[in-house]
Amino acid sequence: MLTYDLNECPEKQPLYEFLYERIRDDIVGGRLAPGDRLPGKRSLANHLGASTNTVMRAYDMLLAEGFLYARERRGYFVEEVNYAPKPRAKARLLPDEAPARPKAAEASIDTGGTRASLDLFPASIWGRCMREALSLPTDELMRAIPHQGLSDLRSALCDYLYRNRGIEASPNQVVVGPGTELLFDQLLVLLGKGSKFAFEDPGYRKLETIADLRGVSWERIRSDEGCLRVDELGRTGASFVRVAPANLFPQGRVMPVKRRIELFEWANAEPGRYIVEDDYDSEFRYGSKPFSPLFAEDVNDKVVYMNTFSKTLAPSLRIGYMILPPGLLERYESSIALFSSAVSSFEQYALARFIEKGHFERQVYRLRNHYRKTRNLVAAALASSDLAGILDVERCDAGTHLLVNVRTRLSNDEARTRGARAGMRLSFLEDYTDLQAPSPGVCRLVLNYAGITEGNLDDVVGALRAVFL
Amino acid sequence: MLTYDLNECPEKQPLYEFLYERIRDDIVGGRLAPGDRLPGKRSLANHLGASTNTVMRAYDMLLAEGFLYARERRGYFVEEVNYAPKPRAKARLLPDEAPARPKAAEASIDTGGTRASLDLFPASIWGRCMREALSLPTDELMRAIPHQGLSDLRSALCDYLYRNRGIEASPNQVVVGPGTELLFDQLLVLLGKGSKFAFEDPGYRKLETIADLRGVSWERIRSDEGCLRVDELGRTGASFVRVAPANLFPQGRVMPVKRRIELFEWANAEPGRYIVEDDYDSEFRYGSKPFSPLFAEDVNDKVVYMNTFSKTLAPSLRIGYMILPPGLLERYESSIALFSSAVSSFEQYALARFIEKGHFERQVYRLRNHYRKTRNLVAAALASSDLAGILDVERCDAGTHLLVNVRTRLSNDEARTRGARAGMRLSFLEDYTDLQAPSPGVCRLVLNYAGITEGNLDDVVGALRAVFL
Repeated sequence: MLTYDLNECPEKQPLYEFLYERIRDDIVGGRLAPGDRLPGKRSLANHLGASTNTVMRAYDMLLAEGFLYARERRGYFVEEVNYAPKPRAKARLLPDEAPARPKAAEASIDTGGTRASLDLFPASIWGRCMREALSLPTDELMRAIPHQGLSDLRSALCDYLYRNRGIEASPNQVVVGPGTELLFDQLLVLLGKGSKFAFEDPGYRKLETIADLRGVSWERIRSDEGCLRVDELGRTGASFVRVAPANLFPQGRVMPVKRRIELFEWANAEPGRYIVEDDYDSEFRYGSKPFSPLFAEDVNDKVVYMNTFSKTLAPSLRIGYMILPPGLLERYESSIALFSSAVSSFEQYALARFIEKGHFERQVYRLRNHYRKTRNLVAAALASSDLAGILDVERCDAGTHLLVNVRTRLSNDEARTRGARAGMRLSFLEDYTDLQAPSPGVCRLVLNYAGITEGNLDDVVGALRAVFL
Repeated sequence: MLTYDLNECPEKQPLYEFLYERIRDDIVGGRLAPGDRLPGKRSLANHLGASTNTVMRAYDMLLAEGFLYARERRGYFVEEVNYAPKPRAKARLLPDEAPARPKAAEASIDTGGTRASLDLFPASIWGRCMREALSLPTDELMRAIPHQGLSDLRSALCDYLYRNRGIEASPNQVVVGPGTELLFDQLLVLLGKGSKFAFEDPGYRKLETIADLRGVSWERIRSDEGCLRVDELGRTGASFVRVAPANLFPQGRVMPVKRRIELFEWANAEPGRYIVEDDYDSEFRYGSKPFSPLFAEDVNDKVVYMNTFSKTLAPSLRIGYMILPPGLLERYESSIALFSSAVSSFEQYALARFIEKGHFERQVYRLRNHYRKTRNLVAAALASSDLAGILDVERCDAGTHLLVNVRTRLSNDEARTRGARAGMRLSFLEDYTDLQAPSPGVCRLVLNYAGITEGNLDDVVGALRAVFL
């Protein structure tokens, strides 16, 4: 008869589990052989001084996990299993917690990338909207959300866009998603694999990686006067093009009306052509009200509109959206709409309230003023420093960066290395372009000022002096 | 000289914008011809009785948008643009707000799909954790999050998994993502396109669509005794297989130890083979403590572990995670880690607190008891109804559904239609399988009881009676 000392069972472990482990170890260790018959539950219980229930639960676990099999009216037998000798507790070395990635963002002054100003997030108002969301009846909020997103949020977005961007769209054209990267990825699925995508050069290069991962071919289109050349676009055979007409990168200009018209002509010339309009940073335009988006001008269902809250609220709040032209809705329903929304409904609801109550418009207004001031501050500090003699600041009327041309013998990489040594992360126009060669004797600095404050302005100028003087 | 009545400017519109619109309309309408020279700023200002600044801003907007060009010391000229006649305000019909999708979920009793019980979400505790998140210093919380997720959450997950699932993993092996669908998609990118995926049949079919969209080929593997046949797996040439060993679908059994060993043998036999272990619903096991996951038994870096909070917290809270074996971390760094995390850092932080403080373990305990009771309630109600004569409930020790075999002449589709008429959404085993033919004379109902309460139990039995009696 199987004999185990149940007094050895640790205080916190249930008896049946202890018994289960002992029998299992005997099977794995070969002390109980395949085909061996186990004692009946009642007799083993008597033998061990345990309750029948304890033995029954242990047997049930062994049965469920395949260590035993049962024969009706005959009892429990050990299963025929080829137990490989199992190495003891693995002493394998886990990689350190320190991330393997180079810590580019560790520079104390970060003027690269797309960062936003972190101090202006309206945490208390957002918290109030979130509390409202959490106090709602659970029914709507707890279900798996339709892929397009909560209807409250889609309605609030449509109202906002109508008031502020002249866009007339119905909430059922809106798709909410966790940021531009994933929305763009969904768009690739929607528009299909057989086609070719065109991107502006210079431009946002991560989208090209996303297209690669979907197996969608793409080509970069040369720009002149800061804007993609539509004649070159026609030559590529692309069906889709991504543009940011409200904020051409990196000059921050708007797309001239001539190009807008050419772009529509290109899209209208063949069925299946679409313009993907990224309205990123259109909220941050300092000179004048932005021109209306292509989506609002479109009369032939040729434009997909995209935007995100990563800059207007926080990059860590993963909410963006796209608006599909009615002609794409059916295709959408049969492809990507199958999946659940990837955005938490609590945050969708909180954002809907935040927009409906006007907090979002006030937040954009506040940020725009803040960035305008920062831009002027930075431009003035550069102009009055002894760097003034070697640099020109190009007019940038949008976004949160300045394009600064520095006359220097340094290459971009030399300047970048010196910047890192001075505690400053630098980006250059050439980081965003494949088609434009660097001009000899000039570093074209893309200076994101969203992280610059009155407090660190002197450090910024000091670091630039250390790099270039 | 251009003449506009600035008194017509609506009260709320800035004067410069009104002037800009008038001039733009004259250019688009052809009243100002390409090449026409515009009056100087000061003289137009005098002429209209406006400030020079107003005219300057209007000209600047027209310039920025490409309606005008400037010649140094000569002034502003109308740009040569080929304005297509623009249709007037589009009277296009927007599709109705009503979604185009069939409203399957509208049935008043929903026993299909993967729904969770909605009333047990601990909204007030969650709200407290969220408030804590919102009161944190913004710096960590506001930055773009690394793809892997907040380190607080990854650490909390590792501690929880160690205590509850015997998993030893370092936080840098954890990848947080917005639910299983997207994590699985990332895994496809990580494991690469050249290979083949294997899925259990019956199984979770959405994953196959996700693989199709990534261009990854796949095959379904036949099961016996509720578990995938590893001998068939070897035959397919697949490199990856997705299994749910803690909760084989739909029987809710665990994977027998024999199959577990075979599966490891399969994975260890060739480099590049991986087991993707979905531990979904392992928290809801009613008989005994679940067997340890494959990930914890693995000694050769062959297992990727996945789980989600959609059932243990709420399906609308989009957070899941996977744990990569150390051998995949480098590949991960160079592929999917390039992208931003798609999960809001507020919710990541709130979830980290929720787990650290033990709320999550209590919530799982509470839900498990609730579901156990519901399961017994439903099984008892079926057994004591006059349906008892035509149905058997298969033992289901995990998850939130029962497998109910109903002896009937109805086909699944006939039963489904009758169910819809009785206000009840039904799922059948055959909805999840390609390889198993329906048994004539039997409907194999997969009855998710997460939405069943004492309050609607009579309606559930009533609807089943209406369908089958």
